[in-house]
Amino acid sequence: MQAADIAWILTAIALVAIMFPGLAFLYGGMLGSGQVLNMFMMVMSSLAVATVVYVAVGHGLVVGDSVGGLGLIGNPGEWLFFGNAMADDGSGAALWGAFNILFAGISLALVASGAAGRMKFWAWLIFGAVWILVVYAPLAHWVFAFDDPDAGTVGGWLANRIGFHDFAGGTAIHMNAGAAGLALALVLGPRRGGPARPHNLPLTLFGAGMLMVGWLGFNGGTAGGANFTATYVVLTSLLAAGGGMLGFAVVEKLRNGRSTLLGLATGVIAGLVGITPAADAVNPFGAVAVGILAAAAAAWAITWKNRHGIDDSLDVFAVHGIAGIAGVLFVTFLGDDRAPAGIRGVLLGGEVSQIWREALAILVTLTWSFGVTWLLAKAMSLVIDIRISREEEDAGIDRAVHSEYGYDLRMTSAFGLSTRPAEDPADTVSDRRAAAPAPVVTTAQADLKEQK
Amino acid sequence: MQAADIAWILTAIALVAIMFPGLAFLYGGMLGSGQVLNMFMMVMSSLAVATVVYVAVGHGLVVGDSVGGLGLIGNPGEWLFFGNAMADDGSGAALWGAFNILFAGISLALVASGAAGRMKFWAWLIFGAVWILVVYAPLAHWVFAFDDPDAGTVGGWLANRIGFHDFAGGTAIHMNAGAAGLALALVLGPRRGGPARPHNLPLTLFGAGMLMVGWLGFNGGTAGGANFTATYVVLTSLLAAGGGMLGFAVVEKLRNGRSTLLGLATGVIAGLVGITPAADAVNPFGAVAVGILAAAAAAWAITWKNRHGIDDSLDVFAVHGIAGIAGVLFVTFLGDDRAPAGIRGVLLGGEVSQIWREALAILVTLTWSFGVTWLLAKAMSLVIDIRISREEEDAGIDRAVHSEYGYDLRMTSAFGLSTRPAEDPADTVSDRRAAAPAPVVTTAQADLKEQK
Amino acid sequence: MQAADIAWILTAIALVAIMFPGLAFLYGGMLGSGQVLNMFMMVMSSLAVATVVYVAVGHGLVVGDSVGGLGLIGNPGEWLFFGNAMADDGSGAALWGAFNILFAGISLALVASGAAGRMKFWAWLIFGAVWILVVYAPLAHWVFAFDDPDAGTVGGWLANRIGFHDFAGGTAIHMNAGAAGLALALVLGPRRGGPARPHNLPLTLFGAGMLMVGWLGFNGGTAGGANFTATYVVLTSLLAAGGGMLGFAVVEKLRNGRSTLLGLATGVIAGLVGITPAADAVNPFGAVAVGILAAAAAAWAITWKNRHGIDDSLDVFAVHGIAGIAGVLFVTFLGDDRAPAGIRGVLLGGEVSQIWREALAILVTLTWSFGVTWLLAKAMSLVIDIRISREEEDAGIDRAVHSEYGYDLRMTSAFGLSTRPAEDPADTVSDRRAAAPAPVVTTAQADLKEQK
Repeated sequence: MQAADIAWILTAIALVAIMFPGLAFLYGGMLGSGQVLNMFMMVMSSLAVATVVYVAVGHGLVVGDSVGGLGLIGNPGEWLFFGNAMADDGSGAALWGAFNILFAGISLALVASGAAGRMKFWAWLIFGAVWILVVYAPLAHWVFAFDDPDAGTVGGWLANRIGFHDFAGGTAIHMNAGAAGLALALVLGPRRGGPARPHNLPLTLFGAGMLMVGWLGFNGGTAGGANFTATYVVLTSLLAAGGGMLGFAVVEKLRNGRSTLLGLATGVIAGLVGITPAADAVNPFGAVAVGILAAAAAAWAITWKNRHGIDDSLDVFAVHGIAGIAGVLFVTFLGDDRAPAGIRGVLLGGEVSQIWREALAILVTLTWSFGVTWLLAKAMSLVIDIRISREEEDAGIDRAVHSEYGYDLRMTSAFGLSTRPAEDPADTVSDRRAAAPAPVVTTAQADLKEQK
Repeated sequence: MQAADIAWILTAIALVAIMFPGLAFLYGGMLGSGQVLNMFMMVMSSLAVATVVYVAVGHGLVVGDSVGGLGLIGNPGEWLFFGNAMADDGSGAALWGAFNILFAGISLALVASGAAGRMKFWAWLIFGAVWILVVYAPLAHWVFAFDDPDAGTVGGWLANRIGFHDFAGGTAIHMNAGAAGLALALVLGPRRGGPARPHNLPLTLFGAGMLMVGWLGFNGGTAGGANFTATYVVLTSLLAAGGGMLGFAVVEKLRNGRSTLLGLATGVIAGLVGITPAADAVNPFGAVAVGILAAAAAAWAITWKNRHGIDDSLDVFAVHGIAGIAGVLFVTFLGDDRAPAGIRGVLLGGEVSQIWREALAILVTLTWSFGVTWLLAKAMSLVIDIRISREEEDAGIDRAVHSEYGYDLRMTSAFGLSTRPAEDPADTVSDRRAAAPAPVVTTAQADLKEQK
Repeated sequence: MQAADIAWILTAIALVAIMFPGLAFLYGGMLGSGQVLNMFMMVMSSLAVATVVYVAVGHGLVVGDSVGGLGLIGNPGEWLFFGNAMADDGSGAALWGAFNILFAGISLALVASGAAGRMKFWAWLIFGAVWILVVYAPLAHWVFAFDDPDAGTVGGWLANRIGFHDFAGGTAIHMNAGAAGLALALVLGPRRGGPARPHNLPLTLFGAGMLMVGWLGFNGGTAGGANFTATYVVLTSLLAAGGGMLGFAVVEKLRNGRSTLLGLATGVIAGLVGITPAADAVNPFGAVAVGILAAAAAAWAITWKNRHGIDDSLDVFAVHGIAGIAGVLFVTFLGDDRAPAGIRGVLLGGEVSQIWREALAILVTLTWSFGVTWLLAKAMSLVIDIRISREEEDAGIDRAVHSEYGYDLRMTSAFGLSTRPAEDPADTVSDRRAAAPAPVVTTAQADLKEQK
């Protein structure tokens, strides 16, 4: 790799890393104030789980030479402990290792939304590790691992045998996370008392903003270096983000008579999901259109889902699944062959065979992801109860499971700012200190007695 | 363009993109808690509006060959639908297209501050699109479009005929936004009940911090690549940010006996505004001085404005207009010709003619921006009422116009944390679900009935 | 310097700049709601102080040719006013100047945690300037300034005479800040009423997330360019961040039966501190192990400190001091010589002399930093009282010293959201405007009468 490519991919890694706190904020702000910390923990721990799984066998499963040349799964031993990332051989192995860890981590973090406020934290960690191994890794191998005739290695069957187009992970990342989040939500069942009102929309907006910034690295880094494609997809990503905001705002205005911030935040994410598979295959005007259409499709899917009473708590299926499909369909029918990918859409005279290629990829992704995730969650719930108790859920998962809560906005007594009643038994410092055994807490940490 | 230049400009684009959520936080935190979401929406939608306007005709108006060679406006057809950004011709067109969209978007977002809490959201979107076309685009053409004898194209009159110095947009971005924000504020009239106390200063500080980071890309990217000038202006920008913080803190301490966080946040922005036109023309010591002086000038302007009862709600004229002028004047009188721009200030023996060049550029910018924005806002307000109703403003624009509010910090009933009275009719989930027609809302979104 | 190296180091500068708002959020969220603004101000002003000190003499003290060739302190005149950063000589002087300012600033900002909620703001500014000159600059010279035989310059004694390994500042940055924060906390004495419960954990999490992102630039930039080492240390940093999160979570789970968000946030920072000296010297599996061990060591140190009643308010000694030591020890005993640094750990057959080299460096750092900081703080407290009064502390430093408070979450009267009692005398706008003399405040700024 050239130094300039290294410079840009390093930057892209930092940008994608921003997506973790960004996603934590996006999701955390949409929940009630008693579930925010748990959501933060699920999102951030997704990165932690991905690092450990990847450093062991995960990276080999995804990018390793396909076992038996079947295109089903990579060789787990090939990247054992990332040993081959230690040589300064110009391959960029350390760089792509880090980039891929972040891709796996962010996919898992998106799945967390389906479990909002009601899953045991340690069950989540175990679920996450297994999910990366059995759901994400095979799918990512099918989609991201390309045959390399020079090296004599074989890649995944979808990427090489089917030859569909997916620029930066519309299938393996977004549709996968959308379907998996939905499956997990269905196994867990809906939240008690139904959805809460979002407790802190500024968090949500800032999360969406950081995701937008991070996405420039996500798509731009996928171009593989500091090249023309990178500049092109950063432009189209920005255009789709803008189109997504306007698209959702217009749909809201037409249907409800007003636009909302949550709509704008949802629109920007949906627009970016839509452009992810299409960023190198549409023209700039098409990029705006992808943004608008993906946002409109997500809006439609949210309404449909609400009518059916499914508690996909943070709409990951609508925003990542449906908007991702919208992006893929746009390329299929309206791709512009002047763009870097050189694909002519079917409506513009392109090959009709693209339709079944893309349809098959979508179908395989959704089926695999939903099915295997559902089996995994169901199997786990038979062995250990993965859902917290009724009482814990009513008390709020932050307090009941983590012995913390998000906010304590009282000022000193002199000014009386308080958001909690004075009779709260956890109020006095002495009480907090009376807890035993001596906990491993930072000085500042609330050391509350467990509620049950 | 070289790959290394692409790597840095891609990074600069991501950094400038951070300025949108940053500005939303800076401004949102300074408003009352009932106006924060609307401000977020105005800032983020500025980016959306800029993408759509630019992908159509905006980019051509700014950087296209001057129509008739007059230096007044670029050829709108030259960049129709960004068609010429699709060719991998080494021109970096896609890159600069994205960079320029962000410049237009952030200028518009700054103008939003003048309309805080009292403008109809759809009127804002229309105002924004027209403002970019009739105010920003001509001014940006005058300042940013340089003659290119090789290509036989003609640029803007200020940049080429007058030859004043403005490194990264002190005139076309900051003075422009300052004057336009003031004009919009005057047409709208002051807020009912006067300015609110800032509802969330942590948001404001974090916004200022993100703007500081983004500014490194804003100024550094203007250098055009990964070159010496880029390193130099990043150093001077950092020094001016530090000087701005200290400058505002000292003025506050001397006048009021204490320094404040809002002062520090205002100072860092003022310092960065001051260095924007001057970053390549002062020495490092001068960069600190520019920061201090720009912050002191902004502090003086805020006091002056408060005495005259103008509700330029978030002081965009003082912080962007006056601090920008301070930066330009510093170069004029104290520019160091060892710096990359090679300009010797008048007080150090430089050409006296710089004084009228810079003065003319400032005067033209302020007059054009204030005048045309005032006419635009006035014309719109004659056709449609661009200000929300009295009742909506009293109820808070977030709730009245967007049917949302920023915070719901109640915890579950078991712990009684509540910031809203129990009798709020929107409290129960069943109530929220009773609304008709079925709204396009995300699961988490409050679906409140319109207040009026 | 090559253009690609410039591109990456510019990026690294922007990433490290993110660490300032990140640290402000990390610390601010852990304090009570009446101390948050003051902490923000201390962190952000650390950058301001560093710029001014560096532009004068600071940079020369650190990287200048050692005075008398003794290796004790650099020549302050060598970088007077950053004059030699103005020449486009390919040395990257402006770039490294900016990078080094940020290193000094972030070290000082970490020290601020020891003074949380109880130090006069102007005393802090003076303390900070002197601390950079007398504590940080010598130590940084000893550690970061290397002999340059070609240029005939002499560097610091620890780096060149002792030859210990410290990749990116485990000693001069983290152990230094840890020991200095502890010394300052001891001189100031514990907070009245003991530690508060963290008032806003979402701030803390987001701060930790931004620090993680910034750290990729901190460690990656230290590699000196867009090279293999940069890619390698970014990978190991990410792995250690993940390991740190899991490490702290596991310790908490084993000891207290539950994991917490604050634990996760503490763990990610401890993991990154641990990898800072070791990033180029461990293998990827070792990087995960460093993260886990550093987090466990920090957890142990926090418990130990709590038992002894020391109010190192935000645990900077445990998280930066102890975790930094853990990282250094790991390299010493388990370094992998296939990694870029090529160091074989003692347990793997490496040179035993590394033990005393590293031990000496740790001992010198801790002794110097703790000792000189203690003397400085003690001397200042004899001349001027550096701690705020009892009444000010009880009232909350934000309100008492800065006449501001962080939050005002009331909505308009129509909806009654209020977090402050109605009888607060500062509630009415008219009252706020009655204050004299006319203050330098932004329109939005609370203009409260001083409390005493």
